[in-house]
Amino acid sequence: MAIAKTDHALERMVFFSDAVFAIAITLLVIELHAPELPRDTADIVQIQALARLVPNFVGFAVSFAVIGMFWMGHHRAFSLATHYSPRVLGWNLSLLGMIAFMPFATAYLSSNIFQRVPAIFYCVTMLMAALLNLKVNRTATSPPMLDGNASKQAVVYVRRRAVSVVLGSATAVALAFVVPAYCQLGLLSIPVWLRLLTWRSGRPAGA
Amino acid sequence: MAIAKTDHALERMVFFSDAVFAIAITLLVIELHAPELPRDTADIVQIQALARLVPNFVGFAVSFAVIGMFWMGHHRAFSLATHYSPRVLGWNLSLLGMIAFMPFATAYLSSNIFQRVPAIFYCVTMLMAALLNLKVNRTATSPPMLDGNASKQAVVYVRRRAVSVVLGSATAVALAFVVPAYCQLGLLSIPVWLRLLTWRSGRPAGA
Amino acid sequence: MAIAKTDHALERMVFFSDAVFAIAITLLVIELHAPELPRDTADIVQIQALARLVPNFVGFAVSFAVIGMFWMGHHRAFSLATHYSPRVLGWNLSLLGMIAFMPFATAYLSSNIFQRVPAIFYCVTMLMAALLNLKVNRTATSPPMLDGNASKQAVVYVRRRAVSVVLGSATAVALAFVVPAYCQLGLLSIPVWLRLLTWRSGRPAGA
Amino acid sequence: MAIAKTDHALERMVFFSDAVFAIAITLLVIELHAPELPRDTADIVQIQALARLVPNFVGFAVSFAVIGMFWMGHHRAFSLATHYSPRVLGWNLSLLGMIAFMPFATAYLSSNIFQRVPAIFYCVTMLMAALLNLKVNRTATSPPMLDGNASKQAVVYVRRRAVSVVLGSATAVALAFVVPAYCQLGLLSIPVWLRLLTWRSGRPAGA
Repeated sequence: MAIAKTDHALERMVFFSDAVFAIAITLLVIELHAPELPRDTADIVQIQALARLVPNFVGFAVSFAVIGMFWMGHHRAFSLATHYSPRVLGWNLSLLGMIAFMPFATAYLSSNIFQRVPAIFYCVTMLMAALLNLKVNRTATSPPMLDGNASKQAVVYVRRRAVSVVLGSATAVALAFVVPAYCQLGLLSIPVWLRLLTWRSGRPAGA
Repeated sequence: MAIAKTDHALERMVFFSDAVFAIAITLLVIELHAPELPRDTADIVQIQALARLVPNFVGFAVSFAVIGMFWMGHHRAFSLATHYSPRVLGWNLSLLGMIAFMPFATAYLSSNIFQRVPAIFYCVTMLMAALLNLKVNRTATSPPMLDGNASKQAVVYVRRRAVSVVLGSATAVALAFVVPAYCQLGLLSIPVWLRLLTWRSGRPAGA
Repeated sequence: MAIAKTDHALERMVFFSDAVFAIAITLLVIELHAPELPRDTADIVQIQALARLVPNFVGFAVSFAVIGMFWMGHHRAFSLATHYSPRVLGWNLSLLGMIAFMPFATAYLSSNIFQRVPAIFYCVTMLMAALLNLKVNRTATSPPMLDGNASKQAVVYVRRRAVSVVLGSATAVALAFVVPAYCQLGLLSIPVWLRLLTWRSGRPAGA
Repeated sequence: MAIAKTDHALERMVFFSDAVFAIAITLLVIELHAPELPRDTADIVQIQALARLVPNFVGFAVSFAVIGMFWMGHHRAFSLATHYSPRVLGWNLSLLGMIAFMPFATAYLSSNIFQRVPAIFYCVTMLMAALLNLKVNRTATSPPMLDGNASKQAVVYVRRRAVSVVLGSATAVALAFVVPAYCQLGLLSIPVWLRLLTWRSGRPAGA
């Protein structure tokens, strides 16, 4: 005597998640405030005003890539799932909460560049998102959600990718203590971790 | 001689509702304003600035969970509906209006924490959303919208869940008069009310 | 030798339109600015602060209903269309532009209540949206977009409804010159116009 | 041993792209700030306040049309694609990043009208979006993404259209150096470029 939990429930949850990812990624722009200078401003002054926004532009680009990366991981994991399970709902909602929180962490870091606390705050936010992402990806690629026909290697790859995001985020947190302004470079270690984790099995074709 | 009102009309309404839920839940972040401090600020000052935002972070998290909860209830109720009825449209739009209003109520409460009027305002907003939610859920799980094959128990569960949200919100309103800062704790009574209401029948499998 | 213009193109346009409607309706909230008062503020002062926002709350509710009404009209018209036509694209995009502009017109009216220019500005915005809406609805319910099986009465009803929105908006514009603060009441004439226009044919069942 | 990359992956990417386009186009409005004048303001003063916003209104309209145009091109290109390829993902995400960035470039131009640097900044943003758009459209209309049944002429048209957007944007950049305030008029050259490029082959029917 169960409430119908068909693929439709899964589809609607995926749709809702996609929408939150898309909104959060696009909302990043509202933390960029356009300079407003008088009409006879010299070109060089305008350029200086833009130059002061470089940390904000970089923050926008990095967080855009980060949210995009989480969305791609979500995308990949749920493409292997064919059944809905209420177990994933709470974790997924928590993950979306961290994603929706990213514009704040980005604005805080960009407005206080070169400082340790904002850098740690940003990277810890990422780490928390990465841990929730790992949990969601694992749940989506486990029974009862997992598609019976999904290749085992694809499942392994999705999970290793999620683990490498966690390791990359942890690297960023560590860097934030030492070189706050460059902590986001820690994220560049993600492909390295992924390579290390998939050393022997290799990347599945088409991934 | 009727305008075609197929499942497609239902799908498009559900899609529109999902979008509003997703946007409202993600817009919560724009009420968080990142502190902007000079470059040589001491770490402890940054931490104090963040500490002052704790009510805002809590408000973000609670409202995120609240909107998520309403979305889940909507999700659950409409998964039992297979036919569109124009009767649900006005009520659903009113519910979405209250959901879209939540970021304001959240910002007002978070910016005026420990005060009675903002607490009552927030909890009454929730109560109104809960009442509209009850009406929408009842309509979606009644003829002519209800799926002919939906289990009676599932319908009963959806409705009791909606009633328990109303009772939990009413509890929060009552708390707001007494201990304004902790009124949102009243929402924690929702599972208790649900348990009381479903005492005998039990929760349907997989819900 | 034509580019494939299947129902899929129509679906994607409808989806895009729905998304813009949903975002515009939810963005209305960001024009509401929460008062922020010191912690020991008397309850009565908080209530006064809220009372000053009543025009903004009313503006939010009215514009929410207005955008909702345009969305419903769009919904209804496109439920009768089964084919895509590039002819509708430009008009539809212009309509979406006016809808996306509504939060500005709403904020301008709410922040300058009881004044003539903002009232006329708001109502003219509505009138322009209503005219574009009429054009879009007519195009969607004409060949080649119209579903061959759509009832003629349903088409007539959709178009009369769109005309009545134009007439109601024009009424609001006229009122704006006389009683600026209450111009939006002109919108309440929409059902009256609709009744007048459908006097003989009657409303189709299920509409 | 591949991760399943079905049309579903393509659909979800298209959905995500549509959502970002829709959010960015609607977010343009939040850069418009409603004037707030005292209640006894003369009508003429209100009109002057609105007149000062004309560059912002124009900026809103132009960027709305620009994002709409990019969305239509995306729409058209992906209607010819039936298979997903991971190759398009990074380019598409970069394109979406530029689209999401448009509200900032628009606000910067509108708030600093008649100045050279903001005009160049805006037009270069457009040019970068146009180049990414060209790359995405080419990828979507090449194997392995291209629908096997797509007409060759349709593919040619999509690509020429993307090239003409690049040429029109380059024209706008050139104009920005000379007549900053009117640089956006360069975009009006897009149909001219398109006509030149499709001189002999002609526009496909129904495009």
